[in-house]
Amino acid sequence: MGMHEYLKSLSDLEMINRAPGYFKFEQHNVAAHSFKVTQAAQMLGDIEEQAGNKIDWRSLYEKALNHDYTERFIGDIKTPVKYATHELRKMLARVDTSLTENFIKKEIPQEFQKAYERRFAEGKDDTLEGKILSVADKIDLMYESFGEIQKGNPEPVYMDIYKSSLTAIMKFREMASVQYFLKKILPELLKDNADANAKNQLAIATTQIIQQ
Amino acid sequence: MGMHEYLKSLSDLEMINRAPGYFKFEQHNVAAHSFKVTQAAQMLGDIEEQAGNKIDWRSLYEKALNHDYTERFIGDIKTPVKYATHELRKMLARVDTSLTENFIKKEIPQEFQKAYERRFAEGKDDTLEGKILSVADKIDLMYESFGEIQKGNPEPVYMDIYKSSLTAIMKFREMASVQYFLKKILPELLKDNADANAKNQLAIATTQIIQQ
Amino acid sequence: MGMHEYLKSLSDLEMINRAPGYFKFEQHNVAAHSFKVTQAAQMLGDIEEQAGNKIDWRSLYEKALNHDYTERFIGDIKTPVKYATHELRKMLARVDTSLTENFIKKEIPQEFQKAYERRFAEGKDDTLEGKILSVADKIDLMYESFGEIQKGNPEPVYMDIYKSSLTAIMKFREMASVQYFLKKILPELLKDNADANAKNQLAIATTQIIQQ
Amino acid sequence: MGMHEYLKSLSDLEMINRAPGYFKFEQHNVAAHSFKVTQAAQMLGDIEEQAGNKIDWRSLYEKALNHDYTERFIGDIKTPVKYATHELRKMLARVDTSLTENFIKKEIPQEFQKAYERRFAEGKDDTLEGKILSVADKIDLMYESFGEIQKGNPEPVYMDIYKSSLTAIMKFREMASVQYFLKKILPELLKDNADANAKNQLAIATTQIIQQ
Amino acid sequence: MGMHEYLKSLSDLEMINRAPGYFKFEQHNVAAHSFKVTQAAQMLGDIEEQAGNKIDWRSLYEKALNHDYTERFIGDIKTPVKYATHELRKMLARVDTSLTENFIKKEIPQEFQKAYERRFAEGKDDTLEGKILSVADKIDLMYESFGEIQKGNPEPVYMDIYKSSLTAIMKFREMASVQYFLKKILPELLKDNADANAKNQLAIATTQIIQQ
Amino acid sequence: MGMHEYLKSLSDLEMINRAPGYFKFEQHNVAAHSFKVTQAAQMLGDIEEQAGNKIDWRSLYEKALNHDYTERFIGDIKTPVKYATHELRKMLARVDTSLTENFIKKEIPQEFQKAYERRFAEGKDDTLEGKILSVADKIDLMYESFGEIQKGNPEPVYMDIYKSSLTAIMKFREMASVQYFLKKILPELLKDNADANAKNQLAIATTQIIQQ
Repeated sequence: MGMHEYLKSLSDLEMINRAPGYFKFEQHNVAAHSFKVTQAAQMLGDIEEQAGNKIDWRSLYEKALNHDYTERFIGDIKTPVKYATHELRKMLARVDTSLTENFIKKEIPQEFQKAYERRFAEGKDDTLEGKILSVADKIDLMYESFGEIQKGNPEPVYMDIYKSSLTAIMKFREMASVQYFLKKILPELLKDNADANAKNQLAIATTQIIQQ
Repeated sequence: MGMHEYLKSLSDLEMINRAPGYFKFEQHNVAAHSFKVTQAAQMLGDIEEQAGNKIDWRSLYEKALNHDYTERFIGDIKTPVKYATHELRKMLARVDTSLTENFIKKEIPQEFQKAYERRFAEGKDDTLEGKILSVADKIDLMYESFGEIQKGNPEPVYMDIYKSSLTAIMKFREMASVQYFLKKILPELLKDNADANAKNQLAIATTQIIQQ
Repeated sequence: MGMHEYLKSLSDLEMINRAPGYFKFEQHNVAAHSFKVTQAAQMLGDIEEQAGNKIDWRSLYEKALNHDYTERFIGDIKTPVKYATHELRKMLARVDTSLTENFIKKEIPQEFQKAYERRFAEGKDDTLEGKILSVADKIDLMYESFGEIQKGNPEPVYMDIYKSSLTAIMKFREMASVQYFLKKILPELLKDNADANAKNQLAIATTQIIQQ
Repeated sequence: MGMHEYLKSLSDLEMINRAPGYFKFEQHNVAAHSFKVTQAAQMLGDIEEQAGNKIDWRSLYEKALNHDYTERFIGDIKTPVKYATHELRKMLARVDTSLTENFIKKEIPQEFQKAYERRFAEGKDDTLEGKILSVADKIDLMYESFGEIQKGNPEPVYMDIYKSSLTAIMKFREMASVQYFLKKILPELLKDNADANAKNQLAIATTQIIQQ
Repeated sequence: MGMHEYLKSLSDLEMINRAPGYFKFEQHNVAAHSFKVTQAAQMLGDIEEQAGNKIDWRSLYEKALNHDYTERFIGDIKTPVKYATHELRKMLARVDTSLTENFIKKEIPQEFQKAYERRFAEGKDDTLEGKILSVADKIDLMYESFGEIQKGNPEPVYMDIYKSSLTAIMKFREMASVQYFLKKILPELLKDNADANAKNQLAIATTQIIQQ
Repeated sequence: MGMHEYLKSLSDLEMINRAPGYFKFEQHNVAAHSFKVTQAAQMLGDIEEQAGNKIDWRSLYEKALNHDYTERFIGDIKTPVKYATHELRKMLARVDTSLTENFIKKEIPQEFQKAYERRFAEGKDDTLEGKILSVADKIDLMYESFGEIQKGNPEPVYMDIYKSSLTAIMKFREMASVQYFLKKILPELLKDNADANAKNQLAIATTQIIQQ
């Protein structure tokens, strides 16, 4: 019982592939996803700061870096299952919490337990940092689906993911960083290399979602 | 709405890896696992028949072939989550059923819906065929973990899986096919090539479980 | 000499990739192929039964599940070699039979040898179940090639495989299940997502073959 | 010219494998490595804080997260090349700097350029955060090599990496976090599952290095 | 009809894995194997030359480089099939020849056809260069199997391959290069890193074969 | 110190992937690349000979086969780094030479050291064989990029590689084999299967480069 098990467990996240069960040209694992989300959060933090908002950087980095660690205990539960009923969602959350607490008690030395309780708790709260994490998580998902669409992946699930992640980002449209994303980054994404048909579909879907 | 989506979906099962999050030398997917379980069930069926028991072969093959198809809808929920509380387990089962029903209504033509309702229902019931499926499923899991132990995989999870699958098989020890497995097949497995230490550990664990 | 070697050998089929030597986006192994062929056979069996034909389900499942096991002994001989001359084909078949017999004698306990002789013999005979297996095997091959064409694979071999498997299916056009496949499933396949050019080529090839 | 290229480039780090040219059981990419180093840095930061030292958490996370991004421009230059002469090392560093500056000018909007100049500069400086990064980077390298040794990898390069990373950590032995690592974490690592011979070799090498 | 198809076909050899159907830690493809055999042949040629024998270097390189190209047409026929009867072997050789001729006529411009007829013919003849190719091919096979044994692969097939390739090399024991291999290279191989048991087994098998 | 380490090291070249850090549909390693370059060199040699030029075949095969072996010591240094300044390039070359000399002294028996010094030296000199190697190396690079473009890879880097390798080949346009390549092989490549847009882009780029 020290931090050896924890350090070793980080490699387990390299062995959990994202979105199993769909054909994809590029595999992404949870460790690499966490890196990319933290990078996106860092970028969004910069933008917010430029816009005059105060960022608690420690909290922002911490939230983003650790946000998916508990997938190790829970596994990959498909979204329709997770969200089937309000009741089920609450029960699953309770199990997640209890497995996490258990792990902390067994594997984390006492003096660091508080820190890991905070890190493994739901980071997507109503603070500015929590909202940035919500957006950053969806930005990476959007780029994962964009990468597939751009390479000609015919599975309709990737257009669905593209749309639903953009829709989720739009819920935070009042944020300076989301405004920046919509005005400066998204147009570049839409101009990026892809076959004519995919480009068109992306442009239409994007316009519809943004203008709602 | 015809069977095209169903035929295509079979490939999705080739893209769901078993036991994500653990290092393994050999990857196994749900499609190949289903093949191997059906083969094991066929072998157990032969043994039961030799022992004078009557097998409903259609039911046996059908149960084994289709037993993991619904993982497509549900995803890979880790065992400790699934079994956390009796209540949660029941709720998850209900969601599984409702997602499955939904899929059948949307993708299976009406004249075949009954057949798929039967195929996607829980096959591990109290019939002889249901019990054979329970054993066959665990035999494949046991061989997956044996394959890792034999290759020198140091992750203790594989010894845990070996033990828990053998323990689960032992619950059916009164079956003729399980008797045959314990007396004729297991000793060959224990004699198979492996480094001395792994061999020893396997022998000890096996003896402890069998003699309980 | 018991069934341990047999159970272990099932994993070898997971390590034989289909159609080596061609670039493909998706790898398929012989174990997963066997699963999918058995699923397709199950579907075709349902259709035949709906049409009033009697299915020997045990035989159907057994034929489909075991039809490629002997690839373990033989290896992947390219079609032009296999079919080069009638004489060669007969000699290869004889060798296949003798290797298979040898395996059965050495690895299968005597009381089960008869069952495995039946299972490893050529299943594609003139019975309804044998004909269903012939069609199911080609349906999976067709879906494998369709998957590549749909993803934009430029290798012309996949269009060749698509055509030759559809042509092979057409030899059984008098079967109720083949009629169903042509009328209900194939049109859905042709409407599925793919780039405009691939879609067009598939439609033309399909029409030409079907109307012959 | 906005942040789209930057966000997309994060996936490139998922396609750079660590230590190419050596057989390994487990592949690690630069994105996942960056995640794990940041996690290790977070842990070391906790320990330093417990010991009464003040951590600039923003700087620590930032240094760790971004420390290998410039590998995208430089490629994987083998250590003996990089360190061949003092002069060459300085020249390579200059090229690295100029490629990085170039990238920042071309791809990062002006208002964020300063931040990325800081992030892509050498993070391993003499601040406490810089020293933690040096240690965290070596800890992940050590765990990568340990993972191979533990799985029975016969390539001697992994024992070399294990030794050289531990030796590098020892240069920071006066740090509270390194003391903790040596006293609490390393003994657990040495007790972890591995074959007897590997365990022995690890224990001997570790003792020799620690007692120097 | 020019050399474009030929140049493109070289990549097909990168997609044919060696020894499918057996678990292995390291995959080898036919293109990389051809490279390694040509390297081994180059080394054996050096040794023969040192011993005062004259090497036709053009012929040696040519034979080694092209010796497996025709696997593209034939596929991977398992050894027991290939060697089942003398008659079958002759018929398969005839089909191989005719497929190769066909390819040359269709894809190679007339002025180069003679060269490719020579290159695709059986290179393992009774010339010194032909004998070197026979030995070089077995050396690479031996190193492939050694690589697996050394990493702890429990499949007995690799010890079988090790033995049969060494036995095949012994048929050429009168050659200076084989003498050198046995006296200078093999002892180093036997001293290389591996677990104690594997090392022992290799030493015993080697001694038995060499002393016959 | 004999040739065991050398033979074993050939497998290391199978573990160095070409062009890391870019998404690709097909992976190519240095061993397979060396095989394909030697094949292309053999073809170019044939053409030169047909045109009445004398080829030193031993030298040609030797240069091509061994031209990338030293990547083992150096690693994959990105082109912009390698070519940053004339001075740096010279210093890197010196380090390369000294690492290579070192390896030869340590691992190659004295009687063969001269041969390996020649083989590991820069082969792309002003002899006809050196020039053929330069062209053959670029032809394989061009086919690697063509393979990606043809499969719909949206990364612009592959069109850049296609152009720069063709441009490099054009520097040798006075050679008979390059003339043949431009007149007989390139038109076939441009007619090969690909989506309309990729085909168009390739044709335009090719025309522009060839007509300069």
